[in-house]
Amino acid sequence: SNNFFLIAGPCVVESEDLVMEVAETVSGICKKLEIPYVFKASYRKANRTSASSFTGLGDEVGLGLIKKVGDKYQLPTTSDVHAHDECAEAAKYIDILQIPAFLCRQTDLLLAAADTGKIVNVKKGQFLSGPSMKFAVEKIRQAGNDKIMLTERGTTFGYQDLVVDYRNIPWMKEHGTPVIMDCTHSLQQPNQTSGVTGGNPQLIGTVAKAAIATGANGLFIETHPNPAMAKSDGANMLRLDLLEPLLYQLVELRMTIAKLESMS
Amino acid sequence: SNNFFLIAGPCVVESEDLVMEVAETVSGICKKLEIPYVFKASYRKANRTSASSFTGLGDEVGLGLIKKVGDKYQLPTTSDVHAHDECAEAAKYIDILQIPAFLCRQTDLLLAAADTGKIVNVKKGQFLSGPSMKFAVEKIRQAGNDKIMLTERGTTFGYQDLVVDYRNIPWMKEHGTPVIMDCTHSLQQPNQTSGVTGGNPQLIGTVAKAAIATGANGLFIETHPNPAMAKSDGANMLRLDLLEPLLYQLVELRMTIAKLESMS
Amino acid sequence: SNNFFLIAGPCVVESEDLVMEVAETVSGICKKLEIPYVFKASYRKANRTSASSFTGLGDEVGLGLIKKVGDKYQLPTTSDVHAHDECAEAAKYIDILQIPAFLCRQTDLLLAAADTGKIVNVKKGQFLSGPSMKFAVEKIRQAGNDKIMLTERGTTFGYQDLVVDYRNIPWMKEHGTPVIMDCTHSLQQPNQTSGVTGGNPQLIGTVAKAAIATGANGLFIETHPNPAMAKSDGANMLRLDLLEPLLYQLVELRMTIAKLESMS
Amino acid sequence: SNNFFLIAGPCVVESEDLVMEVAETVSGICKKLEIPYVFKASYRKANRTSASSFTGLGDEVGLGLIKKVGDKYQLPTTSDVHAHDECAEAAKYIDILQIPAFLCRQTDLLLAAADTGKIVNVKKGQFLSGPSMKFAVEKIRQAGNDKIMLTERGTTFGYQDLVVDYRNIPWMKEHGTPVIMDCTHSLQQPNQTSGVTGGNPQLIGTVAKAAIATGANGLFIETHPNPAMAKSDGANMLRLDLLEPLLYQLVELRMTIAKLESMS
Repeated sequence: SNNFFLIAGPCVVESEDLVMEVAETVSGICKKLEIPYVFKASYRKANRTSASSFTGLGDEVGLGLIKKVGDKYQLPTTSDVHAHDECAEAAKYIDILQIPAFLCRQTDLLLAAADTGKIVNVKKGQFLSGPSMKFAVEKIRQAGNDKIMLTERGTTFGYQDLVVDYRNIPWMKEHGTPVIMDCTHSLQQPNQTSGVTGGNPQLIGTVAKAAIATGANGLFIETHPNPAMAKSDGANMLRLDLLEPLLYQLVELRMTIAKLESMS
Repeated sequence: SNNFFLIAGPCVVESEDLVMEVAETVSGICKKLEIPYVFKASYRKANRTSASSFTGLGDEVGLGLIKKVGDKYQLPTTSDVHAHDECAEAAKYIDILQIPAFLCRQTDLLLAAADTGKIVNVKKGQFLSGPSMKFAVEKIRQAGNDKIMLTERGTTFGYQDLVVDYRNIPWMKEHGTPVIMDCTHSLQQPNQTSGVTGGNPQLIGTVAKAAIATGANGLFIETHPNPAMAKSDGANMLRLDLLEPLLYQLVELRMTIAKLESMS
Repeated sequence: SNNFFLIAGPCVVESEDLVMEVAETVSGICKKLEIPYVFKASYRKANRTSASSFTGLGDEVGLGLIKKVGDKYQLPTTSDVHAHDECAEAAKYIDILQIPAFLCRQTDLLLAAADTGKIVNVKKGQFLSGPSMKFAVEKIRQAGNDKIMLTERGTTFGYQDLVVDYRNIPWMKEHGTPVIMDCTHSLQQPNQTSGVTGGNPQLIGTVAKAAIATGANGLFIETHPNPAMAKSDGANMLRLDLLEPLLYQLVELRMTIAKLESMS
Repeated sequence: SNNFFLIAGPCVVESEDLVMEVAETVSGICKKLEIPYVFKASYRKANRTSASSFTGLGDEVGLGLIKKVGDKYQLPTTSDVHAHDECAEAAKYIDILQIPAFLCRQTDLLLAAADTGKIVNVKKGQFLSGPSMKFAVEKIRQAGNDKIMLTERGTTFGYQDLVVDYRNIPWMKEHGTPVIMDCTHSLQQPNQTSGVTGGNPQLIGTVAKAAIATGANGLFIETHPNPAMAKSDGANMLRLDLLEPLLYQLVELRMTIAKLESMS
């Protein structure tokens, strides 16, 4: 396909109702717009700012619900893994293991993820450059797994802001992997004194358009029917009913980019 | 017009031959692609890293040659002004006064530029946010001049790099002014020990595409028939023969964006 | 002397009463503590964020009052200069011409300041590294003036914060000049949406102690009897009655550093 | 004691000879200078840039040698832990569990470290502010362990540099914990294309003096008899024979600071 692919879902598995509602809506939109769709939800949040934040329904329940979504809607699925000893278990339920940005240098985790034989999607650390992600790619390749994706999610820019450096899209594509723009977390406002990460969801379209224009292969967008009520990352998620009009525009843009690429 | 406009030319007025060659070539391309074109060259470089760098042919000669270009090719023109007492003189020759990024907070300079009645294009300081450019805009408006443009040219990101924050495009458009992306200087690598600013000209297309996708009204691109021989900013300028294929792509992208904007 | 020197005074010449009060108090403290003292006040604020901010009493009045302070209390004096055509006039009144950080790359200004034969104190731009300040030093030296000082005042760190990089103290001393820490402006919080720069005056002692410990030759501290009522930079100035206990500590620290330096 | 404490040793347990040599030398110096000394060496390097880098002799061997050092020289010891399931085992051998900066947000790891009852030393992430380290502290305290230390090791400043923000020392002391300056890793030059992190060991004294002057309770310094031959972090370690003259100076500085603190 000439189109980009979409990784989307709620930040965390809050309930069966929620994941089913989101998956049904998003898979419907993506069928219409011919966007390959990967369902995403975290079964556990392992690095919340504050210990009192919601971290999930339990790993087995969370993973089970993600698999149920995948089976019901015939979708590939993805979720974060956080320690080497989680990978084999998670791989029984999901198709793409996502390495959180803070953990992208943990060799044991990368190798355990590689060993599952599943696709490994490594998020670029907020402290790393796109070119230096080649070392994460090499660790996974040397473990015999060449199914690798890389995700841009913003870089530390002072304490309370992130900046997206779009040079990282062509730079990371040079590693020979698909590159994804995480349009949700790259708009985080970290280090808030409240312990709740802030955000700028009205800029999701800006981030996504720039990513498609500069050659991103996939987009990552967290979405929720009611972000204000979400149990994690509510400040950044896109309201579910805003997703279709945004994706429509992005597909148009992608078609233009694909035409230009085919000519050059 | 639905198209973006282009500010382009060699970094500095090196010779009459050079400015004429560039203007003729670029105006020909822009006519074909229906891009409104503003000729740019600096008549003086006032903030070169090193005192031994080339700074121009003399203000009167430089300004005179810019005017000659404008007259011959029927083009509006622009150049940098550096001190309040230069503005009135420069305004006799050029149509748009450009305020250098380092100087965007100098009230006297902004007011003197405003007083000429010409268009004033203020480059965002490497140390400023897009929202805070509202104060520069207000200074000029309060002086009775509402013909203002703002230019993004990258933000300090460690000592030896700049990063382009595309959030600044929608943020600066909220000030009610056209917003331009400077695709040349935003790729500078400052603070090199050699005293010669480095660059990444192979990324000009990446910067320009992201800017068009996020709604920039204009692009600024320095171009030279032989950047390696240029007397300033050679590390960043686009080779003149690469300009047309790039602009062709950007116009296609802009047409898609314009269509999407007209629908929403 | 083994001691550091102090550049201090109110941010701007607000009134004769104010400058005399501050000069009398600070010169008394410095005599007691054997600190060489340079009186500082700006005669004009040329780069206020907002055009409606106070900019001074007029250049002639402001400069005249600074000179009156210097004469009355037998103190060397300093103030900012902002454009090449101000330098000769300012040099009639003051002993050290200070180049504002935003302007440290403006060759014409550096050369005009150099030509006065006075000491030139160049503040490191928020966008420059300490090593790259060698080019400012070279411009002034090549104009025949070797009386140069450099001042650290923080570096852009995201939009709304500055960070002081103490590596710049040894790095700038390698240029063969005294190095000053500006303890006031390095604590600014720029780019506030209000147009009023914020601050952290409770950290002045932290900044000053680190500077003395790493070898700074001088300190720059703005002080005011009532910062909350000050017409500029109130958020950062040290309350005048807090100056003596701070300087006492810094002198003790400096004596230890001087002893260690003499041994190695 | 009024003195600071020192955490020091080679980056990684390379061999029994190496750890014994370093411990003997450093403990001798510290006895003479009355500096409380904690022996540090990593038993495993879990986040090397490149998979081909040396990662240790095996956990059991490494931990066993660290314990042997502690027993022989009567020293408390410390080492990094990298995953929740390592903590209980490591706690059998060492006295202080150090949480690597990249992992300071991993709740499972913090809780497992807390549960050992040992002292937990959390390094501030390169992407975190000092104030936001309160959430790491709270996670450990809520687990019933109040023996917490925090370590500053620099903050992301562009891709290839770190900057030490000394405001973090007073800011982190407000969390009610001792604060340590890591003089070694804060001088790293990350994201080098070679995959080998660079450094600036000649600035170790600058970093350490500023830390003592601003109130740090402890210093962390990696040292090696021959850094050029070290198997990890050679670019930043202090040559062992340079340690004593540096510590001598730092103790003098600390005595002055302690005197000033006792007076205010």
